[in-house]
Amino acid sequence: MSELTTALKDCGALQFGDFTLASGAKSDYYIDIKKASTNPKVLYLISILMAERLERENIRPDRIAGVVLGSVPLAAALSMATGIPYVMVRKEKKDHGTGKLIEGDLNPGEKVLVVEDVVTTAGSSIAAIKTLREAGAEVEYALSVIDREAGGEQNYAEIGVKFMSLVKASEIVREKK
Amino acid sequence: MSELTTALKDCGALQFGDFTLASGAKSDYYIDIKKASTNPKVLYLISILMAERLERENIRPDRIAGVVLGSVPLAAALSMATGIPYVMVRKEKKDHGTGKLIEGDLNPGEKVLVVEDVVTTAGSSIAAIKTLREAGAEVEYALSVIDREAGGEQNYAEIGVKFMSLVKASEIVREKK
Repeated sequence: MSELTTALKDCGALQFGDFTLASGAKSDYYIDIKKASTNPKVLYLISILMAERLERENIRPDRIAGVVLGSVPLAAALSMATGIPYVMVRKEKKDHGTGKLIEGDLNPGEKVLVVEDVVTTAGSSIAAIKTLREAGAEVEYALSVIDREAGGEQNYAEIGVKFMSLVKASEIVREKK
Repeated sequence: MSELTTALKDCGALQFGDFTLASGAKSDYYIDIKKASTNPKVLYLISILMAERLERENIRPDRIAGVVLGSVPLAAALSMATGIPYVMVRKEKKDHGTGKLIEGDLNPGEKVLVVEDVVTTAGSSIAAIKTLREAGAEVEYALSVIDREAGGEQNYAEIGVKFMSLVKASEIVREKK
């Protein structure tokens, strides 16, 4: 089992068993990613693995963007691991409250990397990318801790975003065995 | 000027000049704390200064709590600096969305430290403390980057919370001179 999968399992974020998801579909694993992102050791590990991935892929964004709320700790941690500043993006008006849709500085033309905790179909992430692009950002890459492989990669591709993840659902299932 | 005040000034979070606040009141400084918390160096500095403060005061919470949204990066950073896990607390129902009021594990009886970015009257913080206490947490301390000295300390005291800050408004004004 990889270092990340082991850490996710040890902190309780990843559970193996027989689960029925909200959609009614059956699954032999369950992810509660907040257990990972609120655990300092696991959050730090994720930030280091993400930083290494960017290094390996030679991706050097001007900003990181974390979608409210789950991806904000990941964006902050990756920001500290890389020295690249970040913004927080609210995915829609109903999360808006009194704040702005984008919190933190963002200048037109800046290359922005979107980070995510878990990507299923990438719906909320794509809404955030629309907001970032309307603010003048160039969004070419999205990087998630987990890819559920449920259409996210294709949906990102349709809007011109290359999607990467630290671990895919199929790898988690394979590692279980 | 202290290391923190200098860092706040250098990242643009602290500006000196003649400002009229939303309340209509005049001020000779202006704080945009998001410029600090989205800057990796300043976020890291804040987390180290907060960790040192807890050490000095001999405060050892079981959990850190960051109020959504502004204090979540501070909670995550302080969590990594100390190894203490954290939770994210939504201050009220209107921020609720589809999520829970408290994100992350919290067990009844745990001692929770509330972190804040800027405290004015501490209204949103006190709402979050109510939520944490309803979940069984013991909240004795709150620690903010900046204390605007506008009633926060007294309002915290009324609910039995000791308030600390890294820098007070009066110190910022004095350092300006």
